[in-house]
Formats: sequence, structure tokens, C-alpha cells
Amino acid sequence: MDPTPVPELGRRAKAASRLLATTPTVLKNDALNAAADLLLSRAEEILEANSADLARARDGGVSATVIDRLRLTAAKVEGMAGGLRQVASLADPVGEIIDGWTRPNGLRIRRVRVPLGVVAIIYENRPNVTSDAAALCVKSGNAAFLRGSSGAIDSNRGIVSALREGFDKVGLPGDAVVLVEDTSRDAALEFMRQREFVDCLIPRGGPSLIRSILDNATVPYVIDGDGNCHVYVDASADLDMALDIVVNAKTQRPSVCNAAESLVVHEAIADRFLPAVAQAMPEVELVGDEETRRVVPRAGAATDEDYRAEFLDLKMSIRVVQSLDAAIEHVNEYSTGHSEAIITRDLDAATRFTDEVDAAAVLVNASTRFVDGEEFGFGAEIGISTQKLHARGPMGLAQLTTAKYIVVGEGQVRA
Amino acid sequence: MDPTPVPELGRRAKAASRLLATTPTVLKNDALNAAADLLLSRAEEILEANSADLARARDGGVSATVIDRLRLTAAKVEGMAGGLRQVASLADPVGEIIDGWTRPNGLRIRRVRVPLGVVAIIYENRPNVTSDAAALCVKSGNAAFLRGSSGAIDSNRGIVSALREGFDKVGLPGDAVVLVEDTSRDAALEFMRQREFVDCLIPRGGPSLIRSILDNATVPYVIDGDGNCHVYVDASADLDMALDIVVNAKTQRPSVCNAAESLVVHEAIADRFLPAVAQAMPEVELVGDEETRRVVPRAGAATDEDYRAEFLDLKMSIRVVQSLDAAIEHVNEYSTGHSEAIITRDLDAATRFTDEVDAAAVLVNASTRFVDGEEFGFGAEIGISTQKLHARGPMGLAQLTTAKYIVVGEGQVRA
Repeated sequence: MDPTPVPELGRRAKAASRLLATTPTVLKNDALNAAADLLLSRAEEILEANSADLARARDGGVSATVIDRLRLTAAKVEGMAGGLRQVASLADPVGEIIDGWTRPNGLRIRRVRVPLGVVAIIYENRPNVTSDAAALCVKSGNAAFLRGSSGAIDSNRGIVSALREGFDKVGLPGDAVVLVEDTSRDAALEFMRQREFVDCLIPRGGPSLIRSILDNATVPYVIDGDGNCHVYVDASADLDMALDIVVNAKTQRPSVCNAAESLVVHEAIADRFLPAVAQAMPEVELVGDEETRRVVPRAGAATDEDYRAEFLDLKMSIRVVQSLDAAIEHVNEYSTGHSEAIITRDLDAATRFTDEVDAAAVLVNASTRFVDGEEFGFGAEIGISTQKLHARGPMGLAQLTTAKYIVVGEGQVRA
Repeated sequence: MDPTPVPELGRRAKAASRLLATTPTVLKNDALNAAADLLLSRAEEILEANSADLARARDGGVSATVIDRLRLTAAKVEGMAGGLRQVASLADPVGEIIDGWTRPNGLRIRRVRVPLGVVAIIYENRPNVTSDAAALCVKSGNAAFLRGSSGAIDSNRGIVSALREGFDKVGLPGDAVVLVEDTSRDAALEFMRQREFVDCLIPRGGPSLIRSILDNATVPYVIDGDGNCHVYVDASADLDMALDIVVNAKTQRPSVCNAAESLVVHEAIADRFLPAVAQAMPEVELVGDEETRRVVPRAGAATDEDYRAEFLDLKMSIRVVQSLDAAIEHVNEYSTGHSEAIITRDLDAATRFTDEVDAAAVLVNASTRFVDGEEFGFGAEIGISTQKLHARGPMGLAQLTTAKYIVVGEGQVRA
């Protein structure tokens, strides 16, 4: 049987979104908890489906890293169920009155938080994104329109089937979660172009997926982009603190977008600080400018591409600068607008860096690794936006909503 | 001399935007007031430039309406100068702390309103948009990157030259306003694709311009789209109030996006109400369904296109519905998501309509004509967004900003 065409699936998600928009919080929570129960009671089937995906991946000679992301275990399914319950426990953003006022003519205006409608998520091999994304969408009153990778299609089908049945049990429309089962490239392109049905597209994946969105999407989107995050160590920095932060930002989890990729150091402390950095992170490949290589003999020469790179690996670029101005200029030139940190004891330097650096998050005396929805206290996150429109930085439930003006009068007409 | 290439102009605007982002409010205000002075002292030159545009338009056989939009007078130049001073008098949105909190680990997080950077505006024949848009962009700390029509190029050059000189007088970079002088179609397409330099594009124009943005733009944009605005007159409505509102919404200024285009009437009052509507607006062409035509013999038959149309003219579509549900369904089917009104005395009907209708603004017992920045109290507006991301509804200074997280610690690292 041919898979259902993408526009038909979009139409179903849109119809469900109309109902979800006015569904009471308690019912959405019940639905998420029922879905969690179903995931657990279906764990065996889901793991079997995942085995089929894994077998295909192995036959296809897929890398160990990708297989690791694809693999589900009983513990991971429990983690997914726990994620659904966790989102059920969060406050519902829908219905919040953001602001409101009365006009001189008596019109009462209020701005109310409402769901976006249909949130489309396109993602790569991690099957847990299926339930995580669906939970956040449904809790915020949106229908989740999902397009995972071909490599995870059996797992995704199993997970979505459990979610839909859980929702159905409490009376929420199953189409609150709609999975595109056609995993062809054409279907992916069609998915990015459902202007009639999709209110917001959020890609979860690497540079080639982002590139494809930029080139092909006609629906509104929020980009969860690269993080070429810098740590600038100022002349006045507490160097012990700076070392702890640089090591943490670079090595605590190098594969994530809020890990540091580049170190900028004031020349006044480069002689003392850089050898300590090189010694503290022997496992990290260092590339730097001439001054860096003078004080750290093991550092290679950094190219312009190195300064632009999000390594996502145990590699770091280093630049020595002569002033705070030069540091800010370097960061603004190479930043991807994610998270940028300064380590300093100088109030003026901290103020200038936070004022003048253009990024979603600017940190003073803290690791860039703190920039995510959990660490910000949002309870969960759908991604970290590196764009400026709609949402910037970690995106929680509130960023999956928009606003509606409600204007109440007693017959006012315009003169 | 060839006009400066679009990317080079974008680069200049971006450089200026870095300075504008941290420019104190008082200096931005001085710059706007100095620009207002310059507009007045240069009024004669600007009117001469406008005469050249008008002469070309007449030679080209351009319609009287377009010529009317293009024509400047001494009073209009004074109006533009007054607009600059008015924007100078508004509160500066930049630097507002939107929210903030302290995490259990001691990290202090605050979210601060900051400028977008470079705001690009592409617009049609009205030269006053040049100064209005520039004023709003600069007041909100953004560089204005402007691309007007070929028909108004001489006027726009004159206005921009006065603005730039005014800014320069008080020490603001002239490149706070950059005009694209190449008015070819190719340059317009290039303008929509300056991802490196443009943070937000706002089109000000009709359906063909919007279509071109949707098809060609690669920069982020906010669409100021069509308004197929409905007034639904409920069974319980005060019919005198309803008649006042329908007449106001339709006829007070039919050419604007918040004018009503479609009337939806509950069948219980159609017999009494529709003849009164037909009588009260003899100048308005009416098209309706069978029931409408039964009670209003002069009404023509409405097609599906009529129900979808933004007439912007003395024409109105009418539908008679059997229930509130049918009214909401009709509105959601044909709405462009701009402004939708219900006239009712029934609390439940008002609540359901405002909850279930999906639009930027939903009004109860008031004319759709109130949905704009001035009437909402924003002091000025750059447009009315009909999209859901970033800004929805009237856009004032705050909608020309984004947010930045500032995170301050004392050496925290992530475990």
C-alpha cells in the first residue's frame, strides 16, 4: 500500500490542531500519561521494531555512532515514558495573558498565549525525538507533524502508534501526532512546503538538514543551528576560574552545540594561561595563531576555516588578542550567534561584552554548557534557536506558542 | 556611474547596526529630530525630486491612484517630519528586561530586549514609507535597509539624503539608513537574499510583492498580509450596534487591510438584519448565498472566490449560517488570519468565538478597523503581521527587537 500523501497527513494534523487549541490542560496531561503507559506496555514491540531498523543499518554499513543513536533499550523506552510524564507535569503556557490594557475609548485589549497550530519536526536517527517532540507539541496545544529518517522508520512507527493509542484512550484526537511514513527525499521536500497546514517547522539535525531547510522550505521555520561558541579570557580574569570553565566548556560533552569551540585570550595573560590550558586538556587538539603557537608549541596553525568551525570534537581554536575591542570584534566575526562567554573580574569589560556581542546567550564567568532548556529551568526543550525572529536561545513550551489579541468593546466604531 | 552593489550596501548597514545597537536613547532621539529639521529645510529639493518622479509616472501612463500615492506636497513633507518627531517621543524598547530569574546553582539569568540588527523594508510607491520606516528602525536600534520602487526613486533619494545628513549631524552613522538605488527586478531579488546582512525583511505592498517574497526570499521575514476580515452577527446581537459596526468596518476606509470584507449572519436574525444592511450601505455591492439573496434582492450570487477575496473596495460578501459553530467554521475556512469580529450579547458565544477563531486579533462588539498600531496605543506601526512567528498583529517598536539572554555566574561549570 502506498503511504498516505504528505498533504493529506498535513490536513489531518491541522484538523486535530483545531481541537487541541482549546483542549483543557488536564486532558492534555491525561493524554501524555496514557501515552507513557502505552509506551511501557508496548516496549517489547517497540524494541522489536527497533531491531529491524538496527538490522537494516548494519546491513547498510552505517557507522557505529549512528547505530548507537538509533539503538533503543528497555531503559531508553522507560526514559521516553518518563519524558512524557515530565512534560505532563510542566505548567501549560496556553491561555497566559501576556499583557493587556484599556484604551481611552474603552476598548479592552488583551494579548493571550495560544498554540501555533501544527508544529512540524524533521529529524534524524534518534527515535526518542519522536516522543519528546510529540510531548512538547501536544502539551503546548499543537499537533505534532513528524518526519523522521528512513533509518528509524520502524521504531518511529511503533512509538507513534503507542502515542496515538494513548491519546485516543482519553479522548484526544490520534492525529495530535501524525508521522510521515514516506521517507523519500521527495516526501521530505514536500513536507517543508506544506504552507497550508504547517505553522512552524523545527529541524533537528546537522548542517546538511539545515542547508536543505534554508534552500527548500516555504513554511515558517525556527533554525536550531550550529554553535561555534567562544570563551574569552580577559586580562583581569581569575585564571583558575577561567581554566575550570574552559575545560568544562570544551570537554564535558564536546559533541553538543553549547560546547566551546574557540578560545580567545588577552595577550596580557596568554603567556601564563595558554600553557595551563594545553596541560589541562592533553586530549584536545589545539590550533592557534602565531602568538598561541609561540607559547604552546604543540598547537597547530589555525586557518580561517578552523575559526569558523563547529568541531563537535576534542579540538579547539585559539586566538590571542590585544584588547577587549579586538576580542569582541573576533567573536562577532566568527560567532554563529549561539552562546559566548567572557571570564573577567572587570565590571566594564563584562558590561561591554554582554552589550556588544551579538548572540542568543552571553555569559559572564560561567560555562557555555549551561545554555539549554533544562539548565535554564524550562523543564524540557525542543531545541536552541540561533535565529533572531520568534524565539532566540533555548526553546521550551512557551516558544511553541504565538499570541492572539482579544479586543472587547461595547459597540465602538472608528471615527 | 553604476549603483553600488546590493551586498556592499548590506555590509554597510550591518556595520552601522553594530553601533546603533548600543547607541543611547537620547542620541537616537536627537538624530530623529535633526533628520526632521533637515527634511523641512530640504523640502523644496525633495518636492523637486518628487516632480521628476511624477513626470516619469505621467509619461508612463501610470494610474491616477498610483500618482496620488506618489505625490508629495509641502504638507506631506511636514507630516513626515512630524512622524520622525513623534517616533522620537516614544519609549525606547531596547534594554527592557523582559524577564529574569536565579537558578538553584546561583546563575543569574535575564532576558533583555535588543535590536534585530538590519531591518530590510521593500515597498511600493509611497515615498513617506521611506522616512516612517527609517524612523521606527533607528529608534529601535536597527539599521534601515530600504528598497523602494523605481517610480519613487528620486523622491526616496532626496528623503534618504536628508535623513542621513541629519543623523550625521549628531554623530549617528549615516548608514543607519541605506537606500538601494538600483531599482531593477534583479536587485530586488538580490535584496531578499542577503542572509549575511539582513536580520528581518518586512514587505510593505500588495499581493504580488508578498508572492515574490514567499517565492524568493531567503532572509527571515515578517509578512504583512491580506485582511479578509469578517464580522459575524450572532442571533443575540444588538442589531443597532451590529449595523453601526458593519457599516463602519466596511465603509469608513474600504481600501485598508482591517476593513471588513465579509459579513456572516445568524439565520435567526437574517430576515431583519440583512435588509437594514443593504439599506444602510446603498453604495456597497453585495454578493451572498441563496438565503442572502432571498432577503436582499439586490445582492448578487457569491462565488467561492468572493468569499476568499480581500476586495479593498465597496464590495462585501455575505453568508447566512445556522449556528455559531457554522459561523466559526466559515470564518476559519476563509480567514486570512488578520482581524475577525463577533457582535453578540451572549457571553458563551463571545468566549467560543474568541477562543476558536484563529486570527491575529479577535474582536467582540467593536469594529475591525481598530486593529492597528495607533489604535492599539503603540504610537506608530511598521505593519500588521498576519503570520504567527515572531510578531502577530500590529507591529510597533517592540516587534522590531529580539531578545538576548545574559547569564552571570561566579565560575559555575556543568557537572
